[in-house]
Amino acid sequence: MMAMHWSNWDRTDLAVERAAIVRERTGEIPGLESSQEQINGITITRVQVTHAYAASRVGKPPGRYFTLECPELKYRNRTLLKNVAQIIAEELTALAGLPRQNDILVVGLGNWQATPDALGPRVVSQLMVTRHIREYISQDLGGRLYPVAAISPGVLGITGMETADIVRGIVQQIKPELVITVDALAARSPSRLFSTIQIADTGIQPGSGVGNNRPGLNTESLGVPVIAIGVPTVVSGASIAVDVLQDYFSRFNPHARPTIDSVHDFLSQDLLELMVTHKDVDMQIMEISKLLASAINKATQPAITEEEMLDYLQ
Amino acid sequence: MMAMHWSNWDRTDLAVERAAIVRERTGEIPGLESSQEQINGITITRVQVTHAYAASRVGKPPGRYFTLECPELKYRNRTLLKNVAQIIAEELTALAGLPRQNDILVVGLGNWQATPDALGPRVVSQLMVTRHIREYISQDLGGRLYPVAAISPGVLGITGMETADIVRGIVQQIKPELVITVDALAARSPSRLFSTIQIADTGIQPGSGVGNNRPGLNTESLGVPVIAIGVPTVVSGASIAVDVLQDYFSRFNPHARPTIDSVHDFLSQDLLELMVTHKDVDMQIMEISKLLASAINKATQPAITEEEMLDYLQ
Amino acid sequence: MMAMHWSNWDRTDLAVERAAIVRERTGEIPGLESSQEQINGITITRVQVTHAYAASRVGKPPGRYFTLECPELKYRNRTLLKNVAQIIAEELTALAGLPRQNDILVVGLGNWQATPDALGPRVVSQLMVTRHIREYISQDLGGRLYPVAAISPGVLGITGMETADIVRGIVQQIKPELVITVDALAARSPSRLFSTIQIADTGIQPGSGVGNNRPGLNTESLGVPVIAIGVPTVVSGASIAVDVLQDYFSRFNPHARPTIDSVHDFLSQDLLELMVTHKDVDMQIMEISKLLASAINKATQPAITEEEMLDYLQ
Amino acid sequence: MMAMHWSNWDRTDLAVERAAIVRERTGEIPGLESSQEQINGITITRVQVTHAYAASRVGKPPGRYFTLECPELKYRNRTLLKNVAQIIAEELTALAGLPRQNDILVVGLGNWQATPDALGPRVVSQLMVTRHIREYISQDLGGRLYPVAAISPGVLGITGMETADIVRGIVQQIKPELVITVDALAARSPSRLFSTIQIADTGIQPGSGVGNNRPGLNTESLGVPVIAIGVPTVVSGASIAVDVLQDYFSRFNPHARPTIDSVHDFLSQDLLELMVTHKDVDMQIMEISKLLASAINKATQPAITEEEMLDYLQ
Repeated sequence: MMAMHWSNWDRTDLAVERAAIVRERTGEIPGLESSQEQINGITITRVQVTHAYAASRVGKPPGRYFTLECPELKYRNRTLLKNVAQIIAEELTALAGLPRQNDILVVGLGNWQATPDALGPRVVSQLMVTRHIREYISQDLGGRLYPVAAISPGVLGITGMETADIVRGIVQQIKPELVITVDALAARSPSRLFSTIQIADTGIQPGSGVGNNRPGLNTESLGVPVIAIGVPTVVSGASIAVDVLQDYFSRFNPHARPTIDSVHDFLSQDLLELMVTHKDVDMQIMEISKLLASAINKATQPAITEEEMLDYLQ
Repeated sequence: MMAMHWSNWDRTDLAVERAAIVRERTGEIPGLESSQEQINGITITRVQVTHAYAASRVGKPPGRYFTLECPELKYRNRTLLKNVAQIIAEELTALAGLPRQNDILVVGLGNWQATPDALGPRVVSQLMVTRHIREYISQDLGGRLYPVAAISPGVLGITGMETADIVRGIVQQIKPELVITVDALAARSPSRLFSTIQIADTGIQPGSGVGNNRPGLNTESLGVPVIAIGVPTVVSGASIAVDVLQDYFSRFNPHARPTIDSVHDFLSQDLLELMVTHKDVDMQIMEISKLLASAINKATQPAITEEEMLDYLQ
Repeated sequence: MMAMHWSNWDRTDLAVERAAIVRERTGEIPGLESSQEQINGITITRVQVTHAYAASRVGKPPGRYFTLECPELKYRNRTLLKNVAQIIAEELTALAGLPRQNDILVVGLGNWQATPDALGPRVVSQLMVTRHIREYISQDLGGRLYPVAAISPGVLGITGMETADIVRGIVQQIKPELVITVDALAARSPSRLFSTIQIADTGIQPGSGVGNNRPGLNTESLGVPVIAIGVPTVVSGASIAVDVLQDYFSRFNPHARPTIDSVHDFLSQDLLELMVTHKDVDMQIMEISKLLASAINKATQPAITEEEMLDYLQ
Repeated sequence: MMAMHWSNWDRTDLAVERAAIVRERTGEIPGLESSQEQINGITITRVQVTHAYAASRVGKPPGRYFTLECPELKYRNRTLLKNVAQIIAEELTALAGLPRQNDILVVGLGNWQATPDALGPRVVSQLMVTRHIREYISQDLGGRLYPVAAISPGVLGITGMETADIVRGIVQQIKPELVITVDALAARSPSRLFSTIQIADTGIQPGSGVGNNRPGLNTESLGVPVIAIGVPTVVSGASIAVDVLQDYFSRFNPHARPTIDSVHDFLSQDLLELMVTHKDVDMQIMEISKLLASAINKATQPAITEEEMLDYLQ
């Protein structure tokens, strides 16, 4: 989770949640479009931020944000997991213009030592990394393989270096055509934990709009397109607090419902240091990382069958 | 965390919190005693449950519960960490009658794959395990070593077996004189996360009083004294919710403050599946497991200097 | 690797190698039978030790030893891996009388901190553990699930306890109908590393015949049948030394070929502390553990399809 | 182990062994100097390669190679470990011109999934990484901290990228004043495993002189000084074979001793795929990585006491 800022009750990395919050406050705004479709318990929302004004309001850079929501994802169901992996693979293919003849670099962001933040490294460890083997393997298979490299660089607290600096350095050396990042996200609503997948063609801008200037991972900083895949694994303690108060008053005393600002002022410092996750976080991270790795493998290697693919996976 | 039940807003494994809750509701009750002392920012509370009635009200078996609280523990401060380790070592020594000439078995409970639940396995991995080497090492040192064995058996979801069954089987084979368990706990208040250490001479009774009958780890089931050491690493989502509502009304409208029961009824199912932990959970688990391992090593091996001890630690 | 003794040049856990060594020295002996078949690059040898005399000569307890050899196993080939997993599953089914209505306990022996010895724990981490979930899952699937428990207890150096004691304790508690052990083995010949799989219905007798009396894992000690599965992952340094000398003289000066005893006397102490493994040991362990886990899952859960099985695997 | 080539019987990364081999074959050569001193069971050898001719014969680039040998290092002895850590710290200080006001980058080379190759990543995980915290910590301590960053980038088989490319990219971004690499080495003689430490001011040139052109990690490629620290953790199977034959003939039939070339021709392909390590490889890697991390911490942070240092270590 790059640059998670817990000080705000409405902290979320999901464009779909930010768009909803902004609309709730100020109604429709120009430059912010969205559409939604539902299939078999899966909701797909496409948010597009087309103008700078909308971007500043939503706090996300201009671009396309695909969101898949499926509450059932939290429960092991192989058919559903396969269907969702297929949808994600197709969306990735479209958004990233896959397959690519030249190198793709997949970057697993986050901290492998903290389960809720280990999503990126876990996905990367299950990818089909091929950049170095194309010439060494059988002609038949080799001809159908596309080159993929992958790395999990660790987090600032472990390396002492901004992850964006590490990735930029690697990109300038190997010059991939495309970068795909995978990261654990923060959501506003706990119902989205481990049941929502976001794909954005904007890359990652840590703490966007919150006045920090930590370097991002995007076309501007890396010089190549950056597709960012993420799944919410945590909600801030403050979000839960605001939810509870609002729900309570909505139900029992709508007229006395406090404003967001008054709630926020009253939240204790302790609460702001907390994060909320699912009590089966280890299982959830395992399942969703398997799903994402499968989707990325499919999208980057469309000419390889699933059977062949299993030969390469760890 | 053996048998964590998140369905109750006041779920806590800390006797000190349970005693406070019971007293708040019904005033003093016979068979429940406690005393408190403060030294240099450290609060030590001793709760003693002496009667069955008090035990059933508090939901903890009769016995002695030592609790050390120190909010500063969350911040790395070597002098403080050393002081607290020394206090814990002394309390363990007193409560467990250490050192012991015969075998001690330390059991690291919890799931190493989920950071907030990995406390027990992390502590065990840093212990000075000596039971098998006494006869193989230098006469001088060997004469001063006491026999310690240790295991982290995993959790039901990984082994398919109740941890209590596994431990009972091992105890019946190696027949230790004493069992020490180390476990991640649930607290009621987030301020206690990673800043409270509980030592109880009662062993562990999962979900006591909540109508389950999962096997415990205690004198009754194991046939030897069981000292349980724990540190709260999680709070339930419901606890946070109740806190927020109570704090809000206490401040802005004390007369309208809802009853606990009405609050609980209104909590969503989603909230009950959540757990709350510190956002630096990986760092906190690392520090507190180092502290506990150091304390257990000191208490079990009082004749070995710290210098000598470092030769054996991983 | 329980009780590996490196002091002997002919150290091997493979019955097929021991039988060959004994025959080379003394010719056929009564009570030692073997047969061999070859299919598609796979050699299957069945050794049966039927008399105590043969057992003492071979240094393996009476029983049946199935050995599959396939040099190609070292190279990733999914079709071959699947075929071999199927053969192992069938042999396990026959030797262990699977499926079983009552509990099976799978024990992963060895040290997860040393890659060449991590085979058992790696296999266990990929098993379908079901003993605790039968009643909680869908009627349809639950009716077809057989109960499997699994544990990787660690090694003496980590726990301070004999693994056999730990396992015996657990067996006496959960009373399984059958125990299956998985372990990394030592071979005599480096050509067998990661390309041979042994299944024995004798359980494990550490260092058999070499004058030690460490406790075994077998029917005698556990009270239930024990099927032992193993794959050689190491060869002793002394084995390599003897091979080289013998090969050299066989080729250049057969008449001067030194006796085994004279070779052994001259081996340096340093050599005896060494172990030899494949230079891609991490990859080899990963592949073969996947294969064995798949075979055990198939054999223990014959009513579950591969598709359904994937729902449960980590 | 970058670019380990097992095809040669005399494969070694140790300059001290290469110098000895060259001298044995051709006597003293110009441009190759060495000196030796012994203190308390520790042998320190300094080899200096001053001319290109010597470099091509020795197969190591011109520069200074410090080697510490201490057979007792294999056995846990805290006093000795501390002494050796101190000597290494002093040598590092001298060779690298420490401390440095500007950034130092420590790179842990090798594969954390294969115990014998995990030295670099294990050392890095125990370092005091400070580059990102200088401004956030107490004035007093901050003023005495020097900036250190660290990373373990993984190996080609995992990332699909040459490690040298990754490191060069990072160096160009963060522009450290100095790079220190830590790597598991191959030795020629098994007696050197885990008991020899080499420090070179030449950086790393994978497979030097063996006709490959994989990129190195040195001043030429990175633009800053590179100090390479390494410990032999493996010996090739072919080395063992040659040793055994030579020892055998030296003892029993010196006149018939085969030439190296004839021995090499006769070694089987199988043997060339093997690596030899210590049978307690997990324990050895743990101890020596602790020693190296301690030495690097001391050398890079001379103004911090050991007590203070422990506050920062994991």
